Amino acid sequence: MTAKETELNKESKLQDTICAPATARGTAALGMIRISGPNAISIINEIFVTTKGLKCVMKDTASGVTRHGFIINARNEMIDEVMCTIFRAPNSFTGEDTVEISHHGSIFIQQQIMVSIVNLGARIALNGEFSQRAFLNGKIALSQAEAIADLISARTAMAHHLAMKQLHGGYAEKIKEIREEFVKLLSLLELELDFSEEDVQFANRDDLNQLMQHSIDELEKLVKSFEAGSAFKNGIPVAIIGKPNSGKSTIMNAILNEERSIVSPISGTTRDTIEESVQIEGVEYRFIDTAGLRSAKDSIERKGIERSYKAIERAHIILYVCDLTHTPYEEVQAELLLLDSQVSLSGKKIIIIGNKTDLVRSNKVQKEAWDAMNSLQISAINNIGIDELLSRIAKISEKDEKQDELLVTNARHYDAMMRTLAALLVAQESLTEGQPIDIIASDIREAIHYIGEITGEVTTDEVLNNIFSRFCIGK
Amino acid sequence: MTAKETELNKESKLQDTICAPATARGTAALGMIRISGPNAISIINEIFVTTKGLKCVMKDTASGVTRHGFIINARNEMIDEVMCTIFRAPNSFTGEDTVEISHHGSIFIQQQIMVSIVNLGARIALNGEFSQRAFLNGKIALSQAEAIADLISARTAMAHHLAMKQLHGGYAEKIKEIREEFVKLLSLLELELDFSEEDVQFANRDDLNQLMQHSIDELEKLVKSFEAGSAFKNGIPVAIIGKPNSGKSTIMNAILNEERSIVSPISGTTRDTIEESVQIEGVEYRFIDTAGLRSAKDSIERKGIERSYKAIERAHIILYVCDLTHTPYEEVQAELLLLDSQVSLSGKKIIIIGNKTDLVRSNKVQKEAWDAMNSLQISAINNIGIDELLSRIAKISEKDEKQDELLVTNARHYDAMMRTLAALLVAQESLTEGQPIDIIASDIREAIHYIGEITGEVTTDEVLNNIFSRFCIGK
Repeated sequence: MTAKETELNKESKLQDTICAPATARGTAALGMIRISGPNAISIINEIFVTTKGLKCVMKDTASGVTRHGFIINARNEMIDEVMCTIFRAPNSFTGEDTVEISHHGSIFIQQQIMVSIVNLGARIALNGEFSQRAFLNGKIALSQAEAIADLISARTAMAHHLAMKQLHGGYAEKIKEIREEFVKLLSLLELELDFSEEDVQFANRDDLNQLMQHSIDELEKLVKSFEAGSAFKNGIPVAIIGKPNSGKSTIMNAILNEERSIVSPISGTTRDTIEESVQIEGVEYRFIDTAGLRSAKDSIERKGIERSYKAIERAHIILYVCDLTHTPYEEVQAELLLLDSQVSLSGKKIIIIGNKTDLVRSNKVQKEAWDAMNSLQISAINNIGIDELLSRIAKISEKDEKQDELLVTNARHYDAMMRTLAALLVAQESLTEGQPIDIIASDIREAIHYIGEITGEVTTDEVLNNIFSRFCIGK
Repeated sequence: MTAKETELNKESKLQDTICAPATARGTAALGMIRISGPNAISIINEIFVTTKGLKCVMKDTASGVTRHGFIINARNEMIDEVMCTIFRAPNSFTGEDTVEISHHGSIFIQQQIMVSIVNLGARIALNGEFSQRAFLNGKIALSQAEAIADLISARTAMAHHLAMKQLHGGYAEKIKEIREEFVKLLSLLELELDFSEEDVQFANRDDLNQLMQHSIDELEKLVKSFEAGSAFKNGIPVAIIGKPNSGKSTIMNAILNEERSIVSPISGTTRDTIEESVQIEGVEYRFIDTAGLRSAKDSIERKGIERSYKAIERAHIILYVCDLTHTPYEEVQAELLLLDSQVSLSGKKIIIIGNKTDLVRSNKVQKEAWDAMNSLQISAINNIGIDELLSRIAKISEKDEKQDELLVTNARHYDAMMRTLAALLVAQESLTEGQPIDIIASDIREAIHYIGEITGEVTTDEVLNNIFSRFCIGK
């Protein structure tokens, strides 16, 4: 899409005046309807009267001032007593003239007011259309619009924290800076192309290489943060593994009982793994109870164990459960090594749990040996040690969170970053190999395109629709 | 409760600063939290900062002006980006200093903001407490507060219309005037008591009698309107009756199919009557499909027929369904007379329906005879004549609505009016019989008490709690 086409498309998108309820559907004290667009104020002027029955008051009301009055319908009947606030362009969320009507929280009243507004030529907004306008009018970056959606759907303190960080710029600033640098360098390169016959160098190759390396480093950091970021947003996967009858399910139940704030039950990806979401200290975890690990005797058992391996692969944290009555401490490390040979444990945080303290006689040598492995000795069935287990889990993610100030949580951003990175690596190679300028310029142009997708400098209708259709109506 | 006690109680009720979400629970673009009371503004001052991180801005903001900023928690972390409006006493709904926070519509954010507010000493409002304060601070009459609750729960245009009328004074003004007249006359009577030894008359007996008669007339009109008012609010009961196999259920189904806007299914009061709510032209009707009328052969059948009679008793409108293939027109009136001897039909609107036009050959004599009874000939199974039936039903209630401008819809008001009426009739008798002044004064005092209950001049904590506990939280 050319810049001109985008501009035309943008204009046509902003011609309509749109309206929608902004508050959740249901009976309540109050509800709110928003109108945004060129006719927002002239529409409210028609349907809003003050106590004295005066029309034409909103037109002369200052931006940000709330007025008390009534909404009337075409038959001049009062629909509701309301508070009405005007925000004049560009000082509104959308950047357009906007009207907020705070009405009594009845679905019937909301419908009636909407009908009155629509009758005067406004149309009902599409999902996320208010945010889309805020973006198209340059009020927020695309990544910020996405942060608003994340903010609204955040169920935990951590998800909220990440969305809030993103809303206030987050890595958008960093990404924008990188893009601007490349745009500058690209224009110098293009200048060289114009003067190609004269063999001049406007763009300093060292600067270019340095910028590329810097950008690659930054992007690699961000890309790497996606795993943690995505986990913080969607729940950190914790696999509970161990031999059959080591007490995995008892531990799972103890955790669920301990922490009442179950976010939501997530049905296991396979019939044999059970997944439950739990909040611990404001962070969401998805605990996955797996089938016991053992040498498979038949194909059915083999499938169950394969599923356990998959759960381990997905997990960031692994609770390795041993039955103290059957597992000599000497064997634990060997068992883990054996497991590692079958499914890679590298990069995963492992907590070794010695379960069933209730069934073994306290033994100093044994205890010291288990402690030496930094393991946790618990009695899941008696709820002993579960608190300590939860606080260990919380500590692991605390570290993760601090490790990286800017966490990428959005899969679309991650994807665009990966593409940018690929383009930059190619460009760097071209530069090192001394390829012709037009090749390098083309590689950089591609990188600029992908970087621009993150904050929205480059968009297509498809991308925008994809993003905003996932918003709720009225947002 | 003495006036002084009431005053004390009122003061203690208004000391706290209260807060609550005002919008429906759920994920949406926006939500709103309200704070009301003496510390509302100092609280928002602590937790609201502008983009530049400035506190102390809301304190100096004018009433009714909306400001953009952020809500922070005790650890100075941003909870949300919000719009915040202050309404200074007495220019607010409650009559107190009030703050409205419009935040992103996430349940998590709402909780976090509520926690911040409560930490600064506000408490979560009880159901209806904002409205109760508006009443206690003299911003609205009690009957108006009740109208707000009715307005919010209104599901039909008619229920909405009645609540809106009540909100704007309704009969509250009329009731207040009557009360003031009686208070004036009572004080004159009491003056006579003070001078009782001197045998003077301050209160003109004719005036007194005239006022009583006028008030009795007015109240009788209002009391009489309750049946219609209550029906408009809760759905007008329509009984579908007739002999077995006359097609009652087919008509019921045709009505339900015709009108897609089924308000809600109401489970029948007995297993044998089916009740469904349907909106026709903005009015809610409760259609009751009854068991067929026939001479009972056994006790089970007798019970079914008794239930049908009860449905007829409750109904305002009766659809009397005849099977055209079995019912000669000559018998219809006789059948109705017979029915009337078993359950009174007086005052009920009856629509005679000749069903199954599809099964009888068109016959001029028959048709004219049926038309002469102002009956409706339909074929319910083919959906022929159902529209006409619905519009006939709508016309009946249209008349009812116009008959009385002020309809009493509230059972509490009806009850207080009935008591007032009783007290006034006793007072009038005492006056006519020439009873001593103190007897008459006592009767009038009682009437004044009951009148005052309607608009809230006289209230007890019990009455207030009873009314406002039925409101939603945040209202």
